[in-house]
Amino acid sequence: MTDRTRPTRTDYSAWRTATTRWADDDVYGHMNNAAYFEIIDTAVNAHLVEAGVDVRSLPAIGIVAEVSCRYFEEMGFPAPVDVGLAVERLGTSSVVYRIGMFQGQGDQANAEGRFVHVYVDNTVTGGRRPVVPVPPEVRTVVEALATPEQ
Amino acid sequence: MTDRTRPTRTDYSAWRTATTRWADDDVYGHMNNAAYFEIIDTAVNAHLVEAGVDVRSLPAIGIVAEVSCRYFEEMGFPAPVDVGLAVERLGTSSVVYRIGMFQGQGDQANAEGRFVHVYVDNTVTGGRRPVVPVPPEVRTVVEALATPEQ
Amino acid sequence: MTDRTRPTRTDYSAWRTATTRWADDDVYGHMNNAAYFEIIDTAVNAHLVEAGVDVRSLPAIGIVAEVSCRYFEEMGFPAPVDVGLAVERLGTSSVVYRIGMFQGQGDQANAEGRFVHVYVDNTVTGGRRPVVPVPPEVRTVVEALATPEQ
Amino acid sequence: MTDRTRPTRTDYSAWRTATTRWADDDVYGHMNNAAYFEIIDTAVNAHLVEAGVDVRSLPAIGIVAEVSCRYFEEMGFPAPVDVGLAVERLGTSSVVYRIGMFQGQGDQANAEGRFVHVYVDNTVTGGRRPVVPVPPEVRTVVEALATPEQ
Repeated sequence: MTDRTRPTRTDYSAWRTATTRWADDDVYGHMNNAAYFEIIDTAVNAHLVEAGVDVRSLPAIGIVAEVSCRYFEEMGFPAPVDVGLAVERLGTSSVVYRIGMFQGQGDQANAEGRFVHVYVDNTVTGGRRPVVPVPPEVRTVVEALATPEQ
Repeated sequence: MTDRTRPTRTDYSAWRTATTRWADDDVYGHMNNAAYFEIIDTAVNAHLVEAGVDVRSLPAIGIVAEVSCRYFEEMGFPAPVDVGLAVERLGTSSVVYRIGMFQGQGDQANAEGRFVHVYVDNTVTGGRRPVVPVPPEVRTVVEALATPEQ
Repeated sequence: MTDRTRPTRTDYSAWRTATTRWADDDVYGHMNNAAYFEIIDTAVNAHLVEAGVDVRSLPAIGIVAEVSCRYFEEMGFPAPVDVGLAVERLGTSSVVYRIGMFQGQGDQANAEGRFVHVYVDNTVTGGRRPVVPVPPEVRTVVEALATPEQ
Repeated sequence: MTDRTRPTRTDYSAWRTATTRWADDDVYGHMNNAAYFEIIDTAVNAHLVEAGVDVRSLPAIGIVAEVSCRYFEEMGFPAPVDVGLAVERLGTSSVVYRIGMFQGQGDQANAEGRFVHVYVDNTVTGGRRPVVPVPPEVRTVVEALATPEQ
């Protein structure tokens, strides 16, 4: 039904920390499944922004075509989360990222997200926007991610 | 990369409405991809609760093993969302749901979520909890969902 | 320390319903205090949008100068919330709203928000934007709210 | 209408960092007013937890009687937020906290929250729970906060 292979820290090439929030935990006392997607989304966009890509004002924007998360071991408030980012595939108009989330010192991911960005023309408003190539500024950043330093 | 087959209203057997929130929309002026998962999660849990299953106090609880969403056409504040629920698979210890989201009168889904619940022993605390069979109360409700009324 | 006078349904002049979400409830099993603000914010903006005010494209936008919520009786998933809206004060550049939230059939509010919008020039970007008069389209809608039908 | 006195960093005695999320920003391109309350709530609860108070399993829990936020200068994704915590008042059954939020190097707060916790008996379920004294473990932590080091 599901790939239960659990990623480890070496599967990712860029890292950041996400702090958790009291509101992330649901009545079961662990982080609600929807809250992980706020961390996943942030990992991708913050990496692009901090690499100098102004994701808000480019004529092409990445919209999410599909996103998923596999949960291996629960996380929760208040410890922070180590977030690893990797590129699975860089296509003409799309980028597929993998985002590993780790809480504590363990080497195995608590969860892994898979995030598919498709670039569309943001100068068209209303209705569905035409798909366009990944902008060169984004492509440069993504290519660097795809090749972890040796 | 992704199944782009777009579901329609007849693919779902139970319905509810979710109101949208100003905070659901992100800087691009459409519902943020993470907000859809709050609607997906709610569709499953509210259906169980309203069918009489006390999901908070059963000795076994459904934890999310995997969840995903495919986005076909953007939605956003302030219109409400029609949310359809269907069962893809009922296993010994797990249930796979599909959740269709529709905004406006169209017959084609704006987005579809796939939500995998695995039941674990909630009387065990700390660490990973053993997988247990789907509780009979839940099974009854899910079986009714899996067979749309003719 | 706090005004504990509990409002009733007759204190509000416009109504809408907000559905609750599984993720709204925190580990204590009731709606997290932050989630109420998503409902408060939505009540104001949805009222304006549905009255024909395009809050996204006006040259002046209402930014929140202050917001608060008093909690009288807990609410939670999955029941919907009746949301009442009233105007406390309409000034030259600001509007103060009161938002009552009711869950169930009771006449007394579960919670009341107080929301202060100040209008600023949205054609200026970066830094602090100059305060401007409440736009005429907004003023008309707010004046209608301030005078409940007799 | 509102106290517009803007606090500075010396007004707070305990500090933490909160990372921001892409989903925190709304269509106006700044952090949505509701998102601040997730940071406010977290500042109080994380401080208690990290000081050794198990806020989830005490027989008395702090419920929010009132919370507010004054906004002085917008914040937004992706920079982190410095969060300062102070105690305004420690009563028999309640604690009033002030939470200052700063983004960037400035000395003046971008926003300040005021958060009122009232302790209630968590061993009673259903309906309104009786107010009880602030638990001794909490009182000790709060008293330490109320007296910044000289």
